[in-house]
Amino acid sequence: MRLGDRGVAEARPITLTRGFTKFAAGSVLVAMGDTRVICTVSVEDRAPPFLRGAGHGWVTAEYAMLPGATPTRTMREAARGRLGGRTMEIQRFIGRSLRSVVDLHCLGERTLWVDCDVIQADGGTRTAAITGAFVAMVDALQRLRTEPRTVLPLTDYLAAVSVGMVGDRALLDLDYQEDSRARVDMNVVMTGRGQLVEVQGTGEGAPFSPAEMEKLLELAREGMAGLFAAQRAVLGELAEEVGLHVPDARRSPVGGHQEPG
Amino acid sequence: MRLGDRGVAEARPITLTRGFTKFAAGSVLVAMGDTRVICTVSVEDRAPPFLRGAGHGWVTAEYAMLPGATPTRTMREAARGRLGGRTMEIQRFIGRSLRSVVDLHCLGERTLWVDCDVIQADGGTRTAAITGAFVAMVDALQRLRTEPRTVLPLTDYLAAVSVGMVGDRALLDLDYQEDSRARVDMNVVMTGRGQLVEVQGTGEGAPFSPAEMEKLLELAREGMAGLFAAQRAVLGELAEEVGLHVPDARRSPVGGHQEPG
Amino acid sequence: MRLGDRGVAEARPITLTRGFTKFAAGSVLVAMGDTRVICTVSVEDRAPPFLRGAGHGWVTAEYAMLPGATPTRTMREAARGRLGGRTMEIQRFIGRSLRSVVDLHCLGERTLWVDCDVIQADGGTRTAAITGAFVAMVDALQRLRTEPRTVLPLTDYLAAVSVGMVGDRALLDLDYQEDSRARVDMNVVMTGRGQLVEVQGTGEGAPFSPAEMEKLLELAREGMAGLFAAQRAVLGELAEEVGLHVPDARRSPVGGHQEPG
Amino acid sequence: MRLGDRGVAEARPITLTRGFTKFAAGSVLVAMGDTRVICTVSVEDRAPPFLRGAGHGWVTAEYAMLPGATPTRTMREAARGRLGGRTMEIQRFIGRSLRSVVDLHCLGERTLWVDCDVIQADGGTRTAAITGAFVAMVDALQRLRTEPRTVLPLTDYLAAVSVGMVGDRALLDLDYQEDSRARVDMNVVMTGRGQLVEVQGTGEGAPFSPAEMEKLLELAREGMAGLFAAQRAVLGELAEEVGLHVPDARRSPVGGHQEPG
Amino acid sequence: MRLGDRGVAEARPITLTRGFTKFAAGSVLVAMGDTRVICTVSVEDRAPPFLRGAGHGWVTAEYAMLPGATPTRTMREAARGRLGGRTMEIQRFIGRSLRSVVDLHCLGERTLWVDCDVIQADGGTRTAAITGAFVAMVDALQRLRTEPRTVLPLTDYLAAVSVGMVGDRALLDLDYQEDSRARVDMNVVMTGRGQLVEVQGTGEGAPFSPAEMEKLLELAREGMAGLFAAQRAVLGELAEEVGLHVPDARRSPVGGHQEPG
Amino acid sequence: MRLGDRGVAEARPITLTRGFTKFAAGSVLVAMGDTRVICTVSVEDRAPPFLRGAGHGWVTAEYAMLPGATPTRTMREAARGRLGGRTMEIQRFIGRSLRSVVDLHCLGERTLWVDCDVIQADGGTRTAAITGAFVAMVDALQRLRTEPRTVLPLTDYLAAVSVGMVGDRALLDLDYQEDSRARVDMNVVMTGRGQLVEVQGTGEGAPFSPAEMEKLLELAREGMAGLFAAQRAVLGELAEEVGLHVPDARRSPVGGHQEPG
Repeated sequence: MRLGDRGVAEARPITLTRGFTKFAAGSVLVAMGDTRVICTVSVEDRAPPFLRGAGHGWVTAEYAMLPGATPTRTMREAARGRLGGRTMEIQRFIGRSLRSVVDLHCLGERTLWVDCDVIQADGGTRTAAITGAFVAMVDALQRLRTEPRTVLPLTDYLAAVSVGMVGDRALLDLDYQEDSRARVDMNVVMTGRGQLVEVQGTGEGAPFSPAEMEKLLELAREGMAGLFAAQRAVLGELAEEVGLHVPDARRSPVGGHQEPG
Repeated sequence: MRLGDRGVAEARPITLTRGFTKFAAGSVLVAMGDTRVICTVSVEDRAPPFLRGAGHGWVTAEYAMLPGATPTRTMREAARGRLGGRTMEIQRFIGRSLRSVVDLHCLGERTLWVDCDVIQADGGTRTAAITGAFVAMVDALQRLRTEPRTVLPLTDYLAAVSVGMVGDRALLDLDYQEDSRARVDMNVVMTGRGQLVEVQGTGEGAPFSPAEMEKLLELAREGMAGLFAAQRAVLGELAEEVGLHVPDARRSPVGGHQEPG
Repeated sequence: MRLGDRGVAEARPITLTRGFTKFAAGSVLVAMGDTRVICTVSVEDRAPPFLRGAGHGWVTAEYAMLPGATPTRTMREAARGRLGGRTMEIQRFIGRSLRSVVDLHCLGERTLWVDCDVIQADGGTRTAAITGAFVAMVDALQRLRTEPRTVLPLTDYLAAVSVGMVGDRALLDLDYQEDSRARVDMNVVMTGRGQLVEVQGTGEGAPFSPAEMEKLLELAREGMAGLFAAQRAVLGELAEEVGLHVPDARRSPVGGHQEPG
Repeated sequence: MRLGDRGVAEARPITLTRGFTKFAAGSVLVAMGDTRVICTVSVEDRAPPFLRGAGHGWVTAEYAMLPGATPTRTMREAARGRLGGRTMEIQRFIGRSLRSVVDLHCLGERTLWVDCDVIQADGGTRTAAITGAFVAMVDALQRLRTEPRTVLPLTDYLAAVSVGMVGDRALLDLDYQEDSRARVDMNVVMTGRGQLVEVQGTGEGAPFSPAEMEKLLELAREGMAGLFAAQRAVLGELAEEVGLHVPDARRSPVGGHQEPG
Repeated sequence: MRLGDRGVAEARPITLTRGFTKFAAGSVLVAMGDTRVICTVSVEDRAPPFLRGAGHGWVTAEYAMLPGATPTRTMREAARGRLGGRTMEIQRFIGRSLRSVVDLHCLGERTLWVDCDVIQADGGTRTAAITGAFVAMVDALQRLRTEPRTVLPLTDYLAAVSVGMVGDRALLDLDYQEDSRARVDMNVVMTGRGQLVEVQGTGEGAPFSPAEMEKLLELAREGMAGLFAAQRAVLGELAEEVGLHVPDARRSPVGGHQEPG
Repeated sequence: MRLGDRGVAEARPITLTRGFTKFAAGSVLVAMGDTRVICTVSVEDRAPPFLRGAGHGWVTAEYAMLPGATPTRTMREAARGRLGGRTMEIQRFIGRSLRSVVDLHCLGERTLWVDCDVIQADGGTRTAAITGAFVAMVDALQRLRTEPRTVLPLTDYLAAVSVGMVGDRALLDLDYQEDSRARVDMNVVMTGRGQLVEVQGTGEGAPFSPAEMEKLLELAREGMAGLFAAQRAVLGELAEEVGLHVPDARRSPVGGHQEPG
């Protein structure tokens, strides 16, 4: 039995609090069960050094866990003097995901800094961060609009969820206890139109079959509906504005090896 | 005129939310006007290396500003790879202050990790952090009590406030705009019985007179009452338990040069 | 047309040179087209600190690019003073993959250090590293056998390949030029018995459809045959020894959150 | 009894050796009892990056303890790879203090680098550093004068002393042994005209009363006379030049939050 | 007896493989007995920051040991987060040596990056690196020639060898075992015309006599012939081009204190 | 003409001030012309980690330049966060040199920390440091003697000097200006009995002939006499005690590759 009588294909309750803090351009507290992440988006009016003069912008994400977010205190990476591999991996994952639905040419020479700080960790922090940060990004981009009739440079909605095999059962949205026992762990990022953005599946301790892979992907796909509904609900009037933007046919500049380490 | 028609000796409204997060032993969200700090206390069952075998414990504080806490994004110190001088100064200040009301012998070979993470910064973050962290510390110590009738190893209440001279006026609890214009800036930490723990006064750009110093100290002293009242109110039944503890007459081990860098 | 008239489902020629260097317990030079990686495996007779006393071992991987491996010199991370995010991500990916086919209980309190140093980079360095490091690991484990009749603690073969969508074509084993133009980029790690170990798919610049995902996975699966054949060929007499080992039914200790950053 | 029959309000003998080294613009060896600090001032002909184009200069201080300055060797911070919190706190304290008597507009786009290196540590190193560095700063500013009749951009003399409560006695200028036993420890920085620049009082292990605070401040004030006399004596002809400068009524640019971390 | 019946004045067999890797401007695998070093040279079209605008170029060397190059794994310096003293010393030694035969004025505002990565370590890695890197440098400079009739900016050949006293015997080209037992250890760098570039002699554990010094220098001088012959042989047609260049009589800019830390 | 009418074979005046600071076990200020270095020796009652249990001790040296020691301020390496290559090279050179005359077995499981801090830099700082540190080491070892009749564990005197070719002239003890113009720069460390400990000769910008090498070595040898005389003079009664010690015939443990980075 899952905690709180959850079904295998049932996500934990999600809440998205817009405007959670006051000074960032976008700020959302996302709660997915007991996982809580503060997502803020700040706008810098220049592109990062590796893109100077390229005529388009960038979205960069940073991720951290507050020391008190876990039952045993997590050491602060600023105190260690360097970011751990897990943090690096997660913030690259979040950044890549968010960039996939932003039209960077249309954004212009700006940087969106997306900060995801976990204040309570109960599994699925990176996927919750993406789902929450997307909403904060809408708010930050909305603030940039000088004329009300321009379109937000977002090609689609974006949300993420974890799935995994615990024993023989495929479960949606694993909490920490489930994640600790999972044989296979997969993070899936999708757009509102049902396209894939990132799929990262790992056999923890043992390989998995292509059939299991397929089953998990299907489960994730079904679970997305609730996340997009929550995003739309909290965006209210703005909900209809997302995804209207059609990027120019020119090749997007994000591909290839230019992405910095 | 101060923002919101505040009087010169009037602090901003304070709210203390106990149990703000779920996994830390103590967790408080403190809001003082638009300044918001998450204070968590985690308990480690051993003393820090420099105290091993000394038979008593330690209280150590860490402080950070979330990047989105300020209108212009603050760079993450973990990304820089080192703590800045301001952060170091503040977390040493918070740690020293909190240790002054904890009986470290009575605490035993344990470390209290106090984490203060500013999620919204509008002046007075370090003093708000102390006022909030004190309450989180009470909760963490309460959890350590195995027998209900033992006394909390806290000798007194503790709170902090900033004061400053803006032009010729002595102001209590400066917000960011006032702080930017202040000639003299002072942080005062006091105990519930009216004793001083830390006084740090700085003439920003110009020296100040001993008379101004006295005036500011007096203003801080008066402003403390509201802070202690807020702490008592939120602690409810526990409020009476603080300060009952009388430490042994032996000299406290905290003095001297043993304190690590 | 692909370089050298390669078909879309054709991998570049692979060569595995066993015993490439002399002092490491296992040492393989893997060449996949113009990509060249030196993979060495060193054995340390103790487990890493986070596993001390747990009764089993660990496999840890490190990855680096020699500065002269690319047409434009790549700065040395030792000179920068820290590992970049890309390096961290890759070495975690390699380590997780290799651990999935090693029986860590059977390995005992030892650490296998797998070092993958790219001396020539033309795309697919991380997947080539896995394919080559597997063979070096076999050699290192073979050296540990004190009695000839014991079984190597490897549950199966392991190899990896990249696949991607360039325009509308699904291509196997992308070289650098193809990788730069790919819309979707996927790294797949599989076992000799056709099970999945890691699947990491990324839509660079644009999302992809579940159908494309499926097509790429299938392409990777087909491409694996040649890699396993190359491993078997170079292992000669040892080829039959891999995968004979059947791990105890007890749960593997690698899962869960214990894995360090 | 204090060492050497010192009275409670008696400072240790102070000597200031001007021109202690040859290549820095200003160089003073300050001895206060057994505490010895080499203070040098170097002039850089540009403002620090955060002030470029602001039209005024800066004074920045660095502090270090030579490893052999203490009976037990102090580890070198360059070998650790980072500055400790105590060092950061002290050098910020010294820098703020010295800036308070320099007219930074009048200094122009220059940086005064003040280096305080403790070669023998017996308590009160940061206050001795300020008293000595002030004299070195006079020498460095004197060298900058191209015309003899211009005024030094110093608004006043500056000196510093420590005071503390050891048991019930308020003591001036604590040596290391006294400092180790002090209940209350206070550093006071004052100008020649008797204004306060910095007051930092700390209850080590136990809080202190406002009356004690007042007593200590008074003691510091009285003790300053001897320090200013020593500075005047060693400056000889230059002594009269300090403090003639009257800064423009415009607000000094040093206040506010611009001060870097 | 020396390993492999080597005579005291006999170097190990040397092989130089030109074009060992494909993307660097120059790339040589040097083998001296069991010591193997990959030397690559990359060309950057600007001078390092400390030389900007000086009108001439620079040669900078970096050295690293692959972790698997030694029987006991060597920890990666990128993982430690800093270069060790031995590495620093060696790469400065290699860089100084190579610069001595390059005409930096003639090179123009370019940087030659020389990377020496030891893949197998059996003593004499730094001297083998110099001998091999010289050949890689010839190839890189040859590539820079736009007109076939210009002269390579190399004033002479350059090679290096170690010598040492093991007991009472002076030995040429020590392997690791000999080096471990050596009383005196000396590295000698010479030009094709028999001039000295670097001489570094160290009495490990005990001093040595001037007569021993002389004997070792003589032994090194004799041993150089074979190294230059190997360089000439592998350079083929290019062999005659080295050393034709006569630098302008103006003072070389490499001397003095400008060399960065 | 050399500054101050020095002859080519004439060293600058040397003064050695014993007991320059009070708390270190040995403390010497060495002045060689305008070069001034504070050398202190501290004793730690345990061997460094890499020698634990080996039954003998170690001598380790650290070197730094105070920022104000040079006309243009030298940036503090603690502020940079890492030691530069030049510092590393110098402190390894000093450490190796001093170890060559200490009987580490006889020293026992102790570490001598030798700190050389340059307070005024005018060329030859590393050689002055060795000459001064030797005297400080005698004082520190003298303090360790519990019984007056035991012998100091020093096998000989030790001093160092620089020599160089400026134009065609071989000069002894180069000052900064001479060093900047030198074609060849050599540092020589010798024992009181005339044995060599370290010889490091570098052709800055141009190679040098074996004959020049010989000439410089001879010049250094002659210049040593004055340095040993100065050491003997300042050691007074202790002068006769140095070098009486005859180490056991067992091989010294310092050789080989065990020396840490």
